[in-house]
Amino acid sequence: MKARVTVMLKNGVLDPQGEAIRHALGTLGFAGVTGVRQGKVIELELAATDRAAAEAEVGQMCEKLLANTVIESWKVEIL
Amino acid sequence: MKARVTVMLKNGVLDPQGEAIRHALGTLGFAGVTGVRQGKVIELELAATDRAAAEAEVGQMCEKLLANTVIESWKVEIL
Repeated sequence: MKARVTVMLKNGVLDPQGEAIRHALGTLGFAGVTGVRQGKVIELELAATDRAAAEAEVGQMCEKLLANTVIESWKVEIL
Repeated sequence: MKARVTVMLKNGVLDPQGEAIRHALGTLGFAGVTGVRQGKVIELELAATDRAAAEAEVGQMCEKLLANTVIESWKVEIL
């Protein structure tokens, strides 16, 4: 079973990487970009076969390791 | 209009970050994780209003800046 975790900075948290991308896109001539946020995506290959159990386990992984929950939010999709 | 770009290492390209996450999950007691790949997600806020034109423009951004197309693949979703 495959799971995809998306980790993004919470709204209101400064995102210097995103800001750097926005600026670089501007200098390359892409004028219509008004905001950029960068995050991480983590694809997990799981041995589990139960969908609900897998989703719960990946949630625990996010809380314990994959996301810094003070400044980041996470989302799990089971594929 | 919002667009989401997902950039992942191509299959066959070594992913040391993913491997480090897999190892760390193992030491935390998550035994059933057989593989991990890490990538980037970039959310763009666009001034464009035409969906197809926006998708084409974001594709150009990926080719020119957001992805290293030698080792990374990219995917655009217009939200």
